Amino acid sequence: MKWVLTEPGRIRAVSDTESEYAEKPGWVRLRVQYCGICRTDAKMWREGHRDLVFPRVPGHEVCAEDASGKRFAVWPGRSCGQCRYCLTGRENLCDAMEIMGFHVDGGFSRFLLAPMESLIPVDAAMSPHLVCFAEPVGCVIHAVESLHLKQGERLAIFGGGTLGLAAALAARQNGAVPLVIEKNPKKIERAQNFLDLCGIFAATGPGADEFDAAITACPDPAAFGDALSGLAKGGRFSFFSGLAKDAAIQTQQLNLFHYREISLFGAYGLTRRHMEAALSLIADQAPAFSLLVEKIVSPDALGEQFPLVLKGEGFRRIVDLTG
Amino acid sequence: MKWVLTEPGRIRAVSDTESEYAEKPGWVRLRVQYCGICRTDAKMWREGHRDLVFPRVPGHEVCAEDASGKRFAVWPGRSCGQCRYCLTGRENLCDAMEIMGFHVDGGFSRFLLAPMESLIPVDAAMSPHLVCFAEPVGCVIHAVESLHLKQGERLAIFGGGTLGLAAALAARQNGAVPLVIEKNPKKIERAQNFLDLCGIFAATGPGADEFDAAITACPDPAAFGDALSGLAKGGRFSFFSGLAKDAAIQTQQLNLFHYREISLFGAYGLTRRHMEAALSLIADQAPAFSLLVEKIVSPDALGEQFPLVLKGEGFRRIVDLTG
Repeated sequence: MKWVLTEPGRIRAVSDTESEYAEKPGWVRLRVQYCGICRTDAKMWREGHRDLVFPRVPGHEVCAEDASGKRFAVWPGRSCGQCRYCLTGRENLCDAMEIMGFHVDGGFSRFLLAPMESLIPVDAAMSPHLVCFAEPVGCVIHAVESLHLKQGERLAIFGGGTLGLAAALAARQNGAVPLVIEKNPKKIERAQNFLDLCGIFAATGPGADEFDAAITACPDPAAFGDALSGLAKGGRFSFFSGLAKDAAIQTQQLNLFHYREISLFGAYGLTRRHMEAALSLIADQAPAFSLLVEKIVSPDALGEQFPLVLKGEGFRRIVDLTG
Repeated sequence: MKWVLTEPGRIRAVSDTESEYAEKPGWVRLRVQYCGICRTDAKMWREGHRDLVFPRVPGHEVCAEDASGKRFAVWPGRSCGQCRYCLTGRENLCDAMEIMGFHVDGGFSRFLLAPMESLIPVDAAMSPHLVCFAEPVGCVIHAVESLHLKQGERLAIFGGGTLGLAAALAARQNGAVPLVIEKNPKKIERAQNFLDLCGIFAATGPGADEFDAAITACPDPAAFGDALSGLAKGGRFSFFSGLAKDAAIQTQQLNLFHYREISLFGAYGLTRRHMEAALSLIADQAPAFSLLVEKIVSPDALGEQFPLVLKGEGFRRIVDLTG
């Protein structure tokens, strides 16, 4: 069985055949165990995408096993290995990139055919549903890495969702001192167990403090402006989340990049190396990541889950495909 | 004699006294020879500035001599030497920065009292008026340096004024291939001698090409957007010129930083090291820089020159203070 987007607003269970996952050289047939629901999946469900061809199985936050029971996280790209990006360790920018769950069928399926070089082995001791964090947390590690944080530096993280909180853990691993800025006090309340467990602070605004670095983990254009205003001269800005469309940033505000010599680093997706780093962070902080699991749901519930994901309420929803 | 801004729109010659320039430990009295007119001087003349206290002698692109006839370019900052910026080679961001011609009196004057550590010695063979390029060209070298250009990389330079053209020379010194993009064909025409002499290409738009790096050397918000659109994935953007106020950049466009993993580096002012690098570039390319001298004028003509500078027409206007 696989769960297929057939048109905007419609996802349904479809019977599949063995032959769809027939192994070929360099490709492995995997049994999917869990697949996380990303906001991108929910957006594709709501409105499709210019480059998305229906029908398509979404899902790219996969934990799966091969025939021998070895468990893997699956790097969601299929890169050419030959372009200037692949050759310089930036395969996330590959010129011929095919993304699992977008260009090819993804993880909301009992089976998955995946390129061998995209399989990242997982320690058997890790709870398999936590493996679904490897992809999104790898993306945030990539973004945090671009900041080259130093011991004791102050990082402002805008957005107190799953990835903002994961960014705080990644930053602390680099010795930095994170502050999570989440304008919605209810979201801070909901994160309180995580914050207490990890000893991370959160606030509803940046206050008057100066930060060495900032990262935006929410699409709010106001947060982009606040991040800029809160940075010290010479500060670094990781542009991690795309901004909501049909808004604008004033040139007076953008000029702060110039006057304060702020550097900005766009970050998009992740490489295999970041996925490995994510698995290591998840292993170190498993109790914390467990608090970021909102719910484990059946694949038949996907259609109900997408609107909740789009609302930005709750942490990660993970689909159980072991049944 | 010194030329003093007394209120917005008014600059006039004022008699000065020897005692104003009396040497003290660490400070040297200099005889100013030439001082370039920067757009910032013209803006201060037109509208003042929130932090500018009248009366003030403007001018910060100075060539001057000490009593023994040794010639210097003068780094226009007075930095504390103790803050985290000064201690890490970024004295242009000094927390206690005082700028010559803004916080303290500047170069439109027969004499100048300058901190010894701000004097950058000049080769006696260099035409003294060309020394005035050391400051603005040092700023542009600082901005180009942030791009870490590699051999053969393509740099799009937005703006075909004095500093856009100087950026092309700086980029070529790093082995990059510059293209100057200037929307006004008349400005390209005016730069033709320079472009021919240096073998640099210019165009009225970026075309469909992809660039490895871009620098904005004009305040036009449209150029900011064009620079972003023209950059390849992983491209680098030097934000050199502040943008005109009361405009905005759409979030769809800013999102290119995210999706294409573009890095942006704000650049503001220059350090002493950049001023030395500028003098070396000017020495290497003296015939080219001579073509960027629009006019050498008397200090009594400053009031007439400012409106022309604000119009952005013509290359560098330099005031002759040897008389």
